[in-house]
Amino acid sequence: MDERVRDHAAVLVDWSARVEAGDNVVCSVGPDAHELAVAVAEKLGERGANLLATYSSGEIMRAYLRGHDGDFDTDPAHELGLIENADVYLSLGGGRNTSATADIPGKQRQAYDSARTEIRETRLGTRWVSTVHPTRSLAQQAGMAYEEYREFAYDAILRDWESLAEEMAQLKTLLDDGDEVRLVSNDTDLRMRIDGRTAVNSAASVAYDSHNLPSGEVFTAPEAAAGAVTFDVPMTIRGESVRNVRLEFEAGEVVDFEAERGEEVLDAVLETDDGARRLGELGIGMNRGIDRHTDNILFDEKMGDTVHLALGRAYDACLPTGETGNESAVHVDLITDVSEDSRLEIDGTVVQRDGVFLFEDGFEG
Amino acid sequence: MDERVRDHAAVLVDWSARVEAGDNVVCSVGPDAHELAVAVAEKLGERGANLLATYSSGEIMRAYLRGHDGDFDTDPAHELGLIENADVYLSLGGGRNTSATADIPGKQRQAYDSARTEIRETRLGTRWVSTVHPTRSLAQQAGMAYEEYREFAYDAILRDWESLAEEMAQLKTLLDDGDEVRLVSNDTDLRMRIDGRTAVNSAASVAYDSHNLPSGEVFTAPEAAAGAVTFDVPMTIRGESVRNVRLEFEAGEVVDFEAERGEEVLDAVLETDDGARRLGELGIGMNRGIDRHTDNILFDEKMGDTVHLALGRAYDACLPTGETGNESAVHVDLITDVSEDSRLEIDGTVVQRDGVFLFEDGFEG
Repeated sequence: MDERVRDHAAVLVDWSARVEAGDNVVCSVGPDAHELAVAVAEKLGERGANLLATYSSGEIMRAYLRGHDGDFDTDPAHELGLIENADVYLSLGGGRNTSATADIPGKQRQAYDSARTEIRETRLGTRWVSTVHPTRSLAQQAGMAYEEYREFAYDAILRDWESLAEEMAQLKTLLDDGDEVRLVSNDTDLRMRIDGRTAVNSAASVAYDSHNLPSGEVFTAPEAAAGAVTFDVPMTIRGESVRNVRLEFEAGEVVDFEAERGEEVLDAVLETDDGARRLGELGIGMNRGIDRHTDNILFDEKMGDTVHLALGRAYDACLPTGETGNESAVHVDLITDVSEDSRLEIDGTVVQRDGVFLFEDGFEG
Repeated sequence: MDERVRDHAAVLVDWSARVEAGDNVVCSVGPDAHELAVAVAEKLGERGANLLATYSSGEIMRAYLRGHDGDFDTDPAHELGLIENADVYLSLGGGRNTSATADIPGKQRQAYDSARTEIRETRLGTRWVSTVHPTRSLAQQAGMAYEEYREFAYDAILRDWESLAEEMAQLKTLLDDGDEVRLVSNDTDLRMRIDGRTAVNSAASVAYDSHNLPSGEVFTAPEAAAGAVTFDVPMTIRGESVRNVRLEFEAGEVVDFEAERGEEVLDAVLETDDGARRLGELGIGMNRGIDRHTDNILFDEKMGDTVHLALGRAYDACLPTGETGNESAVHVDLITDVSEDSRLEIDGTVVQRDGVFLFEDGFEG
């Protein structure tokens, strides 16, 4: 086994999920993530954790959803019983075809998801972490050779997380102290309120309220968005290619939208529920191990020199205690490049210009 | 997809497990059983059942057991919570290497199994069915080409189960009415008491207390075995090759044993607990779609013209209400060919000679 697979498992189990003896761990394994699952299983054994592996396959989901009449039972007790008694949930993604569910009608998928609200909320209450095993299908989606993609993925995953966490803490402080963020870039001038909100230093560990590996972003939950924003980083949403989305906001809500490609899927996202037309997240990518977009949100949104906004659900960690933020069944991220002709302001002060932060060498306010 | 895969899924879901709308189904998927799992998922969707897929990989189990210090938590709550709320448990076996766990020390495996007694018992209380997807590794174990093996496997699985059930009912009646069975063959003369016991017409359906697909055997729970028996059908037990096992019984217990190959693993089985030295099952193979042994107990024990005995745990379905039969952590089957120079007697009456039953044409009492 490639030593990097073992290193990936060690980071996931120890740094990200903080697994301890006696933890009940659900490990969701994609069809091509087998090798990573083997390495994770060994680590979980060494830690004295209890492993149950589930199988997460787009092809199985597609077959099931196609067979079903759409009247789904609410939170089936066996799945709920599993997750209610889990301390840790590790998602090891990786299939053979990133478009495996492309022909499932959005309505059917939504009906399935909506019937599983309690299961989803319970899962989000565990020490959950999502990662992927670098597969050939992800390499293909990235337009990269397999070995080239593996280099890329492990550069992003096997970082010095502790030192990146310290770096990101500086931006967190700026956001926590601020009231309003303004993003200015090509075709973009957007203001968002962040007063009272707490930014997450997303250092790829549950100890930082961070649930992705790789991570490397600082994010918060904005509200009252006003203005326009263009997302120029290409994306795939629900199997559909999406390019150059432009959103216009008034009083926090999308009032107009267009896209060069993927307008239909964007429309479907916005129609999910009321919360899908509001922002749930403002995220600032700080993982410079990720130096190109690979059409995979797990990596793209963490990319250095980018900012992303998500339509839909806000993370509780960003909200004042007792306050519910934007609620929605969806959380769909869109990304914009800020490496050139761009600035991020907090309360009128430029904190990032052309990708360089004010606490870094070379910053030009 | 090969139409036989869909047919296999249909038999499993409808005939074997009797899945109905609202059933909570756990589907345990082997790494190479993906295609069958897709077909099963579609059927489960059509029936309105709730699917949760688990991933059952020998390589993951090996890695976990190798990492662990052997002090396993008892019945982890997440796994128990899953199975306690399941109505149906479908095991879709099929990996890439049937020896994937060959180097796990037996003690470690036993410690793991012993810590999961309640999980196992709860699973046996569901409508559980074990089947396999015909994989290349199973073809290899059978010494057959892949396509040849697929023909073989589907011949065994896609039978007219209703008509086989009627045929087997005749043998069940003979066993239910009898008090003592005697098996006479080369190097074999064994008597067992079966009075008060109920035979299972194992027609590959939970409706018949039958939990294997394929099945096609009639079995009961014998006691007080006396005499000697030689098992001449080759087997693999816990990854070890076993040949020509000879067991001697007195008052129901193994008092002497030998084997041409695999004596060590046999010894380990017998040492598991007290029940491992007693018989849990007498089974008579009646699936003539299985015309050769393939070193896979799921198929071999159902083979026409064979009789098998299991050391260890007896099935509750064979026992008078309230009576616990032989208890053990193991259930290990051993098979003998009865196609020549053999007879099976019930209370002194020959009911099978050289593979032909008394209710069949060509029977010579």
